[in-house]
Parts: sequence; structure tokens; C-alpha cells
Amino acid sequence: MTEPASLTTVEREEGAAFLPKFDAHGLLSAVVVDATSGDVLVVAFMNAEALARTRESGRVHFWSRSRGRLWQKGETSGNVLEVEDILVDCDQDALVIRARPAGPTCHTGRRSCFYRRLDPDAPDAHALVKVNT
Amino acid sequence: MTEPASLTTVEREEGAAFLPKFDAHGLLSAVVVDATSGDVLVVAFMNAEALARTRESGRVHFWSRSRGRLWQKGETSGNVLEVEDILVDCDQDALVIRARPAGPTCHTGRRSCFYRRLDPDAPDAHALVKVNT
Repeated sequence: MTEPASLTTVEREEGAAFLPKFDAHGLLSAVVVDATSGDVLVVAFMNAEALARTRESGRVHFWSRSRGRLWQKGETSGNVLEVEDILVDCDQDALVIRARPAGPTCHTGRRSCFYRRLDPDAPDAHALVKVNT
Repeated sequence: MTEPASLTTVEREEGAAFLPKFDAHGLLSAVVVDATSGDVLVVAFMNAEALARTRESGRVHFWSRSRGRLWQKGETSGNVLEVEDILVDCDQDALVIRARPAGPTCHTGRRSCFYRRLDPDAPDAHALVKVNT
């Protein structure tokens, strides 16, 4: 899925053609949100294969940069993410995937990977506090 | 903000210390959501400076990979994003920023950059349809 050389900004931003813009490493950002609550569950990367597998199977697949391999979210835990809808941003280099989680999305057992927040009241600017997820 | 060599997975995932994990290019993923609706507004990248400026000013700053420079969201349009809260994920390489937008976040004038979705009913797998944002 390479970008046509002739693609204009208007075509990319206003067009009806999905022409995902992968970066120099062949990746784009993928944000998975809970289709019911809208909460962000996990943020990761997809290459063209991960995106194709996600669309074919209806289950979210990512490309792991640290492990250098394709993986289906929940492939070991069973906590897959069933795709409801895929949103595309203006320049087509990021996706928001609305999904139904089969169980906790985070490998720590939490519903979302975003279970901590920066504590603005702490004297130390590097303090995290846990939030309910 | 370099990662201490001794940081364990437990410290990273369960600890109360914010130790952002920047990638090989010095970046982490930043997802801005509307503090009121929870909708994803924009997805971009931050380097250490963009993150520091965001925290100091209370306004979202990003690192533009295409332009190779720091930018404050809304610096030309005035449509800044006022930070409400910053959530951190399990391995500390992605942030969700809950923000109050001063106006449309997308440079196209839309509330969110995610104003199109993949059309699952189209015969062509590359068809996008616009959604209300």
C-alpha cells in the first residue's frame, strides 16, 4: 500500500479513498477505544500486514516494535478486541479503532493500559497516581 | 529524561515514578481526547521538550516529524488545547491527554481529526465515508 506520487493534500484530507500513510518504518499509530464507553484502551502501532489482518479477521492486530513481530491482541490471554469501526485522521497516518474488548485489555489485568495519571499536586513532577479504570 | 538502567518491569508498570519511555527517535505517542466528551481529537508525537512545554504551559505541544520542529497546537489558529489531565500507559511510552479545546482541533476546521471512517459495506476495501464530528 504505497502512496501514489500524485496524491494531493486535498485528495488525502477530503477524498473518499483510504490511502494509509505509513512512516519510514512502515508504521502508523493505532488507538483502540472501547466502543461502548469511548475510553482509550491501548495505543500501539500497525504495519500494513497488521492492518490487513485486523480488517480480514475483525480482531485487532499490532506490530510490536520491541519484539519485531506481528501479534493479535489477546492471542495468549484470549482478551481479543473485536473491531466495530475504524476511524481515519486527516492525513491518514493514525487510526482510531472502536472495539469491543473480550476482557481486560492491559496485560496487567486492567481494563485499560491507561491506569495512572500524572499527579499535578505532587511536589515532584514525576509522580504518578493510579486511577480507576 | 533517560531511563535508569536498573528500572524493572514492575517499577515501570506499577511504580509511582513517571519515567517516560521515548523511542529510538526520542518520541512517544500522544493521544488528545476531549475532556468533556472523551472523543479522540488528535494523535501525534511528543519529544521530551514538547512534553516539558506542555506541562509547564498547560497547553499541548507536539513534535512534528514532517517539519522537524516543536509546535504548540493552535499556535497559528488560536485553537489551543488546554490540558486537564495526563494519563500514562503501562510501559510509559504513550500518553492520553484530556484537554479542553479552544476551537476546532483539526486544521481542516473540524472538531476532531478523525472525521472519516472505513466503509465496511463498500465493495472497495479502500473507501472512506465522512462521519459527524
